[in-house]
Amino acid sequence: MWLVGARGSVATTVVTGASAMRARLVPPVGMAGETAEFAGAGLPSLDDLVFGGHDVASTPLPKRAAELAQAGVVPAHLVSLVEDELAAADAEIRDGAGGPLREHEDQATAARRLADDISSFRDRHELRRVVVVNVSSTEPRFAAGPEHQDPAVLGRALRGGRDVLPASSLYAYAAILAGCPFVDFTPSTGMRLPALGLLAQERALPYAGSDGKTGETLLRSALAPMFTGRALRVLAWSGTNLLGGGDGATLADPLAAASKTTSKGQGLRGMLGHRTDGDTRIDYVPALGDWKTAWDHVLFEGFLGVRMTMQVTWQGCDSALAAPLVLDLARFTARAHEAGCSGPLGALGYYFKDPLGTTEHRLPEQYRILQDWACALGRPAGAA
Amino acid sequence: MWLVGARGSVATTVVTGASAMRARLVPPVGMAGETAEFAGAGLPSLDDLVFGGHDVASTPLPKRAAELAQAGVVPAHLVSLVEDELAAADAEIRDGAGGPLREHEDQATAARRLADDISSFRDRHELRRVVVVNVSSTEPRFAAGPEHQDPAVLGRALRGGRDVLPASSLYAYAAILAGCPFVDFTPSTGMRLPALGLLAQERALPYAGSDGKTGETLLRSALAPMFTGRALRVLAWSGTNLLGGGDGATLADPLAAASKTTSKGQGLRGMLGHRTDGDTRIDYVPALGDWKTAWDHVLFEGFLGVRMTMQVTWQGCDSALAAPLVLDLARFTARAHEAGCSGPLGALGYYFKDPLGTTEHRLPEQYRILQDWACALGRPAGAA
Amino acid sequence: MWLVGARGSVATTVVTGASAMRARLVPPVGMAGETAEFAGAGLPSLDDLVFGGHDVASTPLPKRAAELAQAGVVPAHLVSLVEDELAAADAEIRDGAGGPLREHEDQATAARRLADDISSFRDRHELRRVVVVNVSSTEPRFAAGPEHQDPAVLGRALRGGRDVLPASSLYAYAAILAGCPFVDFTPSTGMRLPALGLLAQERALPYAGSDGKTGETLLRSALAPMFTGRALRVLAWSGTNLLGGGDGATLADPLAAASKTTSKGQGLRGMLGHRTDGDTRIDYVPALGDWKTAWDHVLFEGFLGVRMTMQVTWQGCDSALAAPLVLDLARFTARAHEAGCSGPLGALGYYFKDPLGTTEHRLPEQYRILQDWACALGRPAGAA
Amino acid sequence: MWLVGARGSVATTVVTGASAMRARLVPPVGMAGETAEFAGAGLPSLDDLVFGGHDVASTPLPKRAAELAQAGVVPAHLVSLVEDELAAADAEIRDGAGGPLREHEDQATAARRLADDISSFRDRHELRRVVVVNVSSTEPRFAAGPEHQDPAVLGRALRGGRDVLPASSLYAYAAILAGCPFVDFTPSTGMRLPALGLLAQERALPYAGSDGKTGETLLRSALAPMFTGRALRVLAWSGTNLLGGGDGATLADPLAAASKTTSKGQGLRGMLGHRTDGDTRIDYVPALGDWKTAWDHVLFEGFLGVRMTMQVTWQGCDSALAAPLVLDLARFTARAHEAGCSGPLGALGYYFKDPLGTTEHRLPEQYRILQDWACALGRPAGAA
Repeated sequence: MWLVGARGSVATTVVTGASAMRARLVPPVGMAGETAEFAGAGLPSLDDLVFGGHDVASTPLPKRAAELAQAGVVPAHLVSLVEDELAAADAEIRDGAGGPLREHEDQATAARRLADDISSFRDRHELRRVVVVNVSSTEPRFAAGPEHQDPAVLGRALRGGRDVLPASSLYAYAAILAGCPFVDFTPSTGMRLPALGLLAQERALPYAGSDGKTGETLLRSALAPMFTGRALRVLAWSGTNLLGGGDGATLADPLAAASKTTSKGQGLRGMLGHRTDGDTRIDYVPALGDWKTAWDHVLFEGFLGVRMTMQVTWQGCDSALAAPLVLDLARFTARAHEAGCSGPLGALGYYFKDPLGTTEHRLPEQYRILQDWACALGRPAGAA
Repeated sequence: MWLVGARGSVATTVVTGASAMRARLVPPVGMAGETAEFAGAGLPSLDDLVFGGHDVASTPLPKRAAELAQAGVVPAHLVSLVEDELAAADAEIRDGAGGPLREHEDQATAARRLADDISSFRDRHELRRVVVVNVSSTEPRFAAGPEHQDPAVLGRALRGGRDVLPASSLYAYAAILAGCPFVDFTPSTGMRLPALGLLAQERALPYAGSDGKTGETLLRSALAPMFTGRALRVLAWSGTNLLGGGDGATLADPLAAASKTTSKGQGLRGMLGHRTDGDTRIDYVPALGDWKTAWDHVLFEGFLGVRMTMQVTWQGCDSALAAPLVLDLARFTARAHEAGCSGPLGALGYYFKDPLGTTEHRLPEQYRILQDWACALGRPAGAA
Repeated sequence: MWLVGARGSVATTVVTGASAMRARLVPPVGMAGETAEFAGAGLPSLDDLVFGGHDVASTPLPKRAAELAQAGVVPAHLVSLVEDELAAADAEIRDGAGGPLREHEDQATAARRLADDISSFRDRHELRRVVVVNVSSTEPRFAAGPEHQDPAVLGRALRGGRDVLPASSLYAYAAILAGCPFVDFTPSTGMRLPALGLLAQERALPYAGSDGKTGETLLRSALAPMFTGRALRVLAWSGTNLLGGGDGATLADPLAAASKTTSKGQGLRGMLGHRTDGDTRIDYVPALGDWKTAWDHVLFEGFLGVRMTMQVTWQGCDSALAAPLVLDLARFTARAHEAGCSGPLGALGYYFKDPLGTTEHRLPEQYRILQDWACALGRPAGAA
Repeated sequence: MWLVGARGSVATTVVTGASAMRARLVPPVGMAGETAEFAGAGLPSLDDLVFGGHDVASTPLPKRAAELAQAGVVPAHLVSLVEDELAAADAEIRDGAGGPLREHEDQATAARRLADDISSFRDRHELRRVVVVNVSSTEPRFAAGPEHQDPAVLGRALRGGRDVLPASSLYAYAAILAGCPFVDFTPSTGMRLPALGLLAQERALPYAGSDGKTGETLLRSALAPMFTGRALRVLAWSGTNLLGGGDGATLADPLAAASKTTSKGQGLRGMLGHRTDGDTRIDYVPALGDWKTAWDHVLFEGFLGVRMTMQVTWQGCDSALAAPLVLDLARFTARAHEAGCSGPLGALGYYFKDPLGTTEHRLPEQYRILQDWACALGRPAGAA
């Protein structure tokens, strides 16, 4: 498992948690992949995972974990018990692209270097496969140009020394070069450029994304089908998200926020079958730290036009919500790779705000699709 | 369609709404049975419904509808447009059991009289079938005795002049005598006595219940599967229900409230798979009138034991939430009777807090079961 | 009482309510001025008020009131009982400035015309005084220029045919010309130009403003002193306002919203004594009609740095909240004029989000200041 | 300062916090007495406080503090920095009454022993005075009998070997015997027996109580005056309190809960001036630990009878809210003793749900009364 943004809060929580679970210090709370439902899917065991990654930051993982413990994101006593594993993972973190040390590197060079880092990691640890997961900060929205439509054109642009990819897509490209499946846990562009999608298909690589569904959107995808099933007409669905921490700071940039709110808004209209009034806001509240609070207000019409309301407040810890999904996704994607799947994994839509390869946003349907797919993955290859 | 409690708020809203929809004055908001999902189920048309019922109250339906309009439960202009239909339905309301006019009637006599009222209604209107729906006030909990286990013993007790049935069960018994399917929309005992269930089976009658799922429990059944699907561990689920109106007053009686909260609590444990901390309260707030507000507070544990919370507030109009479900239930039950189903209709669990004939409480699963069943009902009888 | 925006929702509710209270059809709920606290302040009686105003809209008041009754803002039966009073007030409404009929009128001409309308109204009804109250829609923020600093310079600009005033200030200027006190119930510029303030002082006219405190800000001004009194440190105070109706539409324009949120934010910092994280948002939700919902989230630090939260939701009807304040303000301002007060009436800060003539935003302090002032007003002029 | 319940969560937080503030490790957040408002009141310095107390539990304070740090109530790093102070305070804790070691002690003997413990503490530390503060668990409600009306009768009963006092009153009696002021931070009976009040008066001792105002009631006392000031008519005020921890467990006992809810309900009616619909509930949710969540729902009527609602959620840490108030109260009461005040200190009503010596429950008024009193205390004794 190769984490892009490997020293961020999510990645740190992932490594801390996986180490603690392997040591049987904590149960696998938050990991759907560990429930009885998916026992037969043939997922790789947590015990077999090895961690590495890229980052432009240099604070070592044990120090980052201690900071998270201080903030109440991970329990302090766990951090001290898994310090060796954190140090081992930290030793496998390589320089990311675009950081201060690599200012003059062009993207073609960077992609090769990043891919080599991953291949070397795979070889040294004798791993059957490496899944690359992007858990770095949200990028501003990116408008694809003509050079992003076709692998050949893209290749020429890069060879010509032009830096035409957003960072997230550079990592996706490097993953392809290294022959690795790719998961985008952020709303960034990543694999969402036609040229990259085609390239992944060509090399028989599966990929999944995007934007992990950890809070408000999770609730919406559970609740919207309740309204449509009961034929209650939603008139307005408004949402406010208060975020601190790294992602909140990034999203204080209106361009990055636009990327996120678009990803949030699309599903709602699809699930309800019509437009509604109401906006979805993201506000940066530094004092919240790694915590987030979402408030949703739903105005709906019932029998004979009577108006009623529902309000929901969700107070969660962002990294603690994201980390188990990252572990699930890496394992499901590894299993899909093993089973020979390629292209966008729509069956993993259950995990995403803005799922690739499917238009289904309703949580119960997504869960059923995941169950069916996992069941199919669990059958021996030769079985009908 | 025969309503027990035919002059109550729910029944008045049912008749007002059905009349307004038949006149194409309003769309069928709130009626799942009218969505595209169930277009092929062969449900009887709203246009074919005729209303009658029993009640111990004497305020005529047009007056009750005007009161509801004043309280904002139904739109005032609709009431004046359907006044004739309200008056027609009111003309089909007969004296209930146990009211002031019938103080000295024993239950055997009452049951025959109630059954005759229903049969006469069916004959006069040349109806193929009549579904009896209990929408009267919640009764205190009732402890079944030995005379409620066996139809023969029950028959002897009644013939012996003993009043051994709670009111809701007396109506259920009368429905059986008249050869009618029965739906219990309240948490009262109704058909939940073994002797009555056996009697309904003997006469090939279907029945459904109990306690319409219109608010807090609806939300819980949509949200609890979200937590279990994501392997998030719910530690405490607490709920407060503020109710005004008739049902609130009834539930201010702790015995009746016990009937309701038991019905609410059972499902949660089943859905989550384990006990949790937290109580569910019902408080009577007369000033709320026909409105209700529920607040739920959920404390759950995520990855590595981090604690998070969700809160939901639901502000709804009780009769407006209940009425479309009553219409759906009557039509689904009529269709089941037509198709030859008998006994408890577990497939209608989607509509109930405390479903008969099934242990499934999860809303998405209930919805899928209803879809499958409706699909089966829609096939011509001879088809495989 | 002269209403600018006399056919808007607030003005319609003001006239309907004042008429209903005069007819003793309803008690004076919502009117602080009618409580025992202010019985001795010598306020003019509701029975003595006469209504007129300016508007650019032409829908007559009885029709506007019927629309508000339909929307549940005023009770339908009241509207029919005060129809004559609504028609009488409507007959006293004159063309506003800037409407379609007056496109080519310059501001100097308009100001004279508007002032003549008011003077004529005063003379015809033999009124001792007329208080002009602005209840029209919120304007975009306005940047004052050099011509707004000095009455003489302003006079020259207007006489020169230049339209240098925002609409709200044109009405304030007309009020001064007519010798009338002025109240700004909106966040618009109104009397907030130095030249107008000086002019009002010169003519011994009192004025009050601005932006009626009816919801979220009211709550904040009650709650913020609780935190400071208890030495609890507020780290972040975030707010979301969902507004439908006319004002919501206006505030969907970011410039007008800026005017409103500035007015909301200033007080908080003053009350807490330091900056906090958190934004205040206004979102337009047309489906809410005349209703509004505000959600506030407060993160605070207690003993030893422990972090805690408070959340408040306020669901109110904008016009119903505003109308009684408008009546109170008109009467307090009339009494102040009678008592010889001139300039900004800081003692009326209790009613405003962004009070003129005071820096006090704490509700309990504002209430005490109002009580003291009313007590002083109540003393006979010659008394010490 | 002598704490009854000296090894409970509140007491442990008090000692930890006071030690940390004395070492200048944290600012005095949560302590009104340390704000500029009360700088001139002549309160004893935090640096001069010495801690001792009674408890029937034996877990030492350093261990209790470590447990609280684990639960997030106090910061872990602070606990290790003040370990010596915690151990010193623990060495001054003596056996309480009624514990397992003292089963056969009659109340007369116990009272003398408890009083001697306090006197000995005062002498050994050469303290000018000791304030006894009850922070032990809530008792069931207690019905006073004839022996509680008169000091002489009470004395005879005790000397006769009868155990006629509830535990909280036994401590209050011991405080009087030792010549110490007494503060009841719980809703227990404490000094609320006429015989004890008279005895305290006789010995010129001041006392204060009862039931610290730390959450829902604090909010209510800030918000209710907002409604009455604005002449908005509250129709229903409902509240639900979810409590974990020790106090939650105690209050799961309906008798103890009755003691608490009575104390909560009384003020509301007084502040609003009339009865309202709505109950106040306390539910025990063990999983919440030392945290509590309160939800209040207020239905109110505005202009022309329009109905609106306000909801508030308060999520706080009980001990962190209580501890600074305990420190404030001990210091204000010490100052009152020094200044020669005796009997119930109504001016401390600001701190209590059910204040002794006053009927004022409105927070702004209570704050003003406290300010005025503190100002008077601050004047030299001989000044006018």
